Amino acid sequence: MKEVALGIDIGGTNTVFGCIDSEGNCLVTGSLPTQKHEAIEDYLDELFVEVESAMNGSADKMQIIGVGIGAPNASFYSGTIENAANLRWKGSIPLADLVKKRIDVPVIITNDANAAAMGEKVFGAAKGMNNFIVITLGTGLGSGIVVNGDLLYGHDGFAGEVGHMIVRASGRECGCGRKGCLETYVSATGVKRTVYKLLARHMGDSELRDVPFSRLTAKMVAEAAGRGDLVAKETFTYTARMLGEVLANVVAVTSPQAIFLFGGLTKAGDILFNPVAETLEKQLLSIYKGKIKILASGIEDDAAVLGAASLIWNKR
Amino acid sequence: MKEVALGIDIGGTNTVFGCIDSEGNCLVTGSLPTQKHEAIEDYLDELFVEVESAMNGSADKMQIIGVGIGAPNASFYSGTIENAANLRWKGSIPLADLVKKRIDVPVIITNDANAAAMGEKVFGAAKGMNNFIVITLGTGLGSGIVVNGDLLYGHDGFAGEVGHMIVRASGRECGCGRKGCLETYVSATGVKRTVYKLLARHMGDSELRDVPFSRLTAKMVAEAAGRGDLVAKETFTYTARMLGEVLANVVAVTSPQAIFLFGGLTKAGDILFNPVAETLEKQLLSIYKGKIKILASGIEDDAAVLGAASLIWNKR
Repeated sequence: MKEVALGIDIGGTNTVFGCIDSEGNCLVTGSLPTQKHEAIEDYLDELFVEVESAMNGSADKMQIIGVGIGAPNASFYSGTIENAANLRWKGSIPLADLVKKRIDVPVIITNDANAAAMGEKVFGAAKGMNNFIVITLGTGLGSGIVVNGDLLYGHDGFAGEVGHMIVRASGRECGCGRKGCLETYVSATGVKRTVYKLLARHMGDSELRDVPFSRLTAKMVAEAAGRGDLVAKETFTYTARMLGEVLANVVAVTSPQAIFLFGGLTKAGDILFNPVAETLEKQLLSIYKGKIKILASGIEDDAAVLGAASLIWNKR
Repeated sequence: MKEVALGIDIGGTNTVFGCIDSEGNCLVTGSLPTQKHEAIEDYLDELFVEVESAMNGSADKMQIIGVGIGAPNASFYSGTIENAANLRWKGSIPLADLVKKRIDVPVIITNDANAAAMGEKVFGAAKGMNNFIVITLGTGLGSGIVVNGDLLYGHDGFAGEVGHMIVRASGRECGCGRKGCLETYVSATGVKRTVYKLLARHMGDSELRDVPFSRLTAKMVAEAAGRGDLVAKETFTYTARMLGEVLANVVAVTSPQAIFLFGGLTKAGDILFNPVAETLEKQLLSIYKGKIKILASGIEDDAAVLGAASLIWNKR
């Protein structure tokens, strides 16, 4: 009988789960559409049928010792999902309690950036680190902050909203209803917006002039930069410098050992990482200079599920 | 025999000490000039002669169970003072070890803002709070951040430099060698600088036009504001709004229950506190709105010594 943690990542489109052993091996995995059921109870029923069926189909005999869940708007303290804009279940959903009714083991829920940070600590490149930050760069910008070896939740469970630090007064409109939030600049969406700003400002040729806003992706911008497109290159420099500047301020608050960049946008590689590291180093208060590493995530596959499962393994 | 913690506050001019019981009563107190001795050993010899003499002069029989020290550039992890600009002892001073040679009890050292934060938790208005921030407003701006009930030190012991978050790119010159740090705006010195900026910008009468920069104090500005001086009033509004803006970003990182304002500048009262609270509330991300209190420190007398002693009592 092998002990495993069940990791569940609830995304806006799909839910992915996996049974993860203490070494970070994913023994079985599976998925289902998140939005099929109007009632959370029906969704969970189907999810646990899938989990059982996946486990029965495996040669390994497993025992689930805990369930870790990454979900949007997840509240760690209350075990609830709170008014998630991109899920069908409205209001406050007592997710942890509902899961515990189906399997009586410890259930921990948190948001995806916190799960990513814990995944990095338990299974990834942050092993042995007790003070670090993970910045997730996807459609938006998430952050998971580890201090004294534990996730920083703060008083109400919602610490780590670095993406909503205001970095430009009266700046770009943000989905949160305010202006100038970091994620309006530093994210896949932010990259698109910067491309259009630069296309408006400059006269020079760019292959990006042929792409409508609605079809443009950060990946296309990264590829154009790789081919030497000046607007695309300047876009990444601008994005990275903005991130480096803000990280210098976050360092002044939390003094981490390293900052990990994680998510789709990081596939851009050096054109993102190098100017982030350079700007950070230049902007840092002297007592921090030369001490803070900018690193790539050490988790490749099944990152979301590993992160969710790590919430359980970190407590063992 | 009454158990006490010896609290020591090492300031640039004076060193103050006190024997503090578990209730926060200061049983004996004393002081000596910090800069009299060139050698740290001679300074500590005199300090402990003073402590012993003060204790012998008291009717209470006391036993020191630990020594807490607040000092500039103090490193919690190494127990050292590192290159303090305003002390005579240069380089790295192994303060905790030197104290332990004289009295073999636990010795904890930290900077004065961290000591103030712990003092608030153990003896002040933050009793029972596990996630809060103390902002000390003196010549500069210090910060002590408590998360999960403990001081946030970060990887190297130097977390909590909110005063050195850069808030205006290419802004005011800071003593740290960079530009635009929060403490160049929000501190007693920042208030002076803002007065002069406003006197340059505006044409109107102000009693502050008669005071040279070198003689101007934040207290004079607060008093002028109390008499209705427009430049003085606008100075406090500007200062408070800048602080409120930055605190909204700090909240997005750490999600505290409350933020305490501490130190000389807070004597200005409502003209400081009200616009800080209003600006913070306006700038906060919606999930934090209505949740974060801006409060005055609950410690009146002997704050520095109580803070230093609280480092010991918090661990009991």
